[in-house]
Amino acid sequence: MFRYERPVRFAEVDAARIVFFARYLEYCHDALEAFFGALPGGYAHLINHRDVGIPSVRVEIDYRAPLRYGDVALIDVTVEKLGTKSVTFHHRLARRDDGVVCAEVRQVVVTAHLRELGSVAIPDDMRALLEQHRAV
Amino acid sequence: MFRYERPVRFAEVDAARIVFFARYLEYCHDALEAFFGALPGGYAHLINHRDVGIPSVRVEIDYRAPLRYGDVALIDVTVEKLGTKSVTFHHRLARRDDGVVCAEVRQVVVTAHLRELGSVAIPDDMRALLEQHRAV
Amino acid sequence: MFRYERPVRFAEVDAARIVFFARYLEYCHDALEAFFGALPGGYAHLINHRDVGIPSVRVEIDYRAPLRYGDVALIDVTVEKLGTKSVTFHHRLARRDDGVVCAEVRQVVVTAHLRELGSVAIPDDMRALLEQHRAV
Amino acid sequence: MFRYERPVRFAEVDAARIVFFARYLEYCHDALEAFFGALPGGYAHLINHRDVGIPSVRVEIDYRAPLRYGDVALIDVTVEKLGTKSVTFHHRLARRDDGVVCAEVRQVVVTAHLRELGSVAIPDDMRALLEQHRAV
Repeated sequence: MFRYERPVRFAEVDAARIVFFARYLEYCHDALEAFFGALPGGYAHLINHRDVGIPSVRVEIDYRAPLRYGDVALIDVTVEKLGTKSVTFHHRLARRDDGVVCAEVRQVVVTAHLRELGSVAIPDDMRALLEQHRAV
Repeated sequence: MFRYERPVRFAEVDAARIVFFARYLEYCHDALEAFFGALPGGYAHLINHRDVGIPSVRVEIDYRAPLRYGDVALIDVTVEKLGTKSVTFHHRLARRDDGVVCAEVRQVVVTAHLRELGSVAIPDDMRALLEQHRAV
Repeated sequence: MFRYERPVRFAEVDAARIVFFARYLEYCHDALEAFFGALPGGYAHLINHRDVGIPSVRVEIDYRAPLRYGDVALIDVTVEKLGTKSVTFHHRLARRDDGVVCAEVRQVVVTAHLRELGSVAIPDDMRALLEQHRAV
Repeated sequence: MFRYERPVRFAEVDAARIVFFARYLEYCHDALEAFFGALPGGYAHLINHRDVGIPSVRVEIDYRAPLRYGDVALIDVTVEKLGTKSVTFHHRLARRDDGVVCAEVRQVVVTAHLRELGSVAIPDDMRALLEQHRAV
């Protein structure tokens, strides 16, 4: 499990005064960028120099409680499934102060070559990192 | 069915040069704001003056093809299910130029009172509008 | 003068319930994308196929009144100065309903080649369009 | 001087592959939220419980060099002027890796009451914090 802490920012709420529903996916992506920070050069190096990306093919979000300005989200990332070319991440977003779960997100990505656009096998270093965060 | 046309904007792509996966939900919300534009004062009036919102409780997205800068997304919104306090929308996002389906989104929302925070019955005018766009 | 109409969207306000100050520049850019829509293929064609962009070198914003959810901004774009490689745009943002000016933005851009990164002379078709919207 | 470190995120670049010009103001605001983190409850407490905000009245940005995905911005915030109801912040954004200055931003804000909407005197604890970061 990988934990990422993400304060709600001033501009991230909507006119109903809660974090806009699309931003939950931004939070999950921020968590993944931090997750891949364990690789040399991080996720940016994968994208910029190795031309490998992880486009999403399916996402499911269950919204359970709102996040508001002033809240800090704790995002717990686990690897639910690990295929040859795809990964299923599970993100659990909870409010830091009271532990209430605000959302659960299941995100299926494929490893893809950014120029040739086809899926590719998960690179070895990436796989090793993913293995470390397998759900138990 | 309600159709909404949404050009991809310059800043909506990510470092992999495709529309960022979270933005698909922004596009769906833009479509819903236009959808509710048929009510007097639109969605803003619902939020600002009637204190009624439609927080999402579940979202499923299947990503099928990328959107890029220069593309225009056609978003076809239908009402799949209509309960007393909840609605299931289906959004089909396709590229205008070649008709390729880029994503299908299922979004379950509840009608809620923004101050008291509980769910409320779908207001009559809203229900009438939703009925007009039921999936057949 | 080129006029662009931009409704405030649900997620564009901040925790103080007004349009977030950075978004004024997004609105101006949306207006510019529409402005360049008069060229074949629009701004996207310039970026994607001609490798020409217009990075900003200086921006000045005077905020005069807030925009809120439910407002529609009218953005009046004029070309204040037209050099060989630079353009100064003036954007006046007003609320459609009461005409109150919400912001004035002066934006200096250069025409640049996106790969070679140096500034280039303003292309002829772009210049002709800019001339049409010179401030009087 | 207050220093804030802000990695460029995956979705923050535009179709020209550089950080979108409006996002520089988001970065500055992130820096200010961190700056006010020194107050009890931070900036969120000011907004949510004391009804005090700092709307911008004028912003000037000089863009000097691009930021790209993979860069980390170092934002140095200083207080240039401190009035009874207004503050002028200076933000200097530099790339962490090579020290190149990417932008300088001058931002004039007023302290305002969020409900009554008028300007108010800078609260004492806020003023004390601002004094600590005066430009020398």
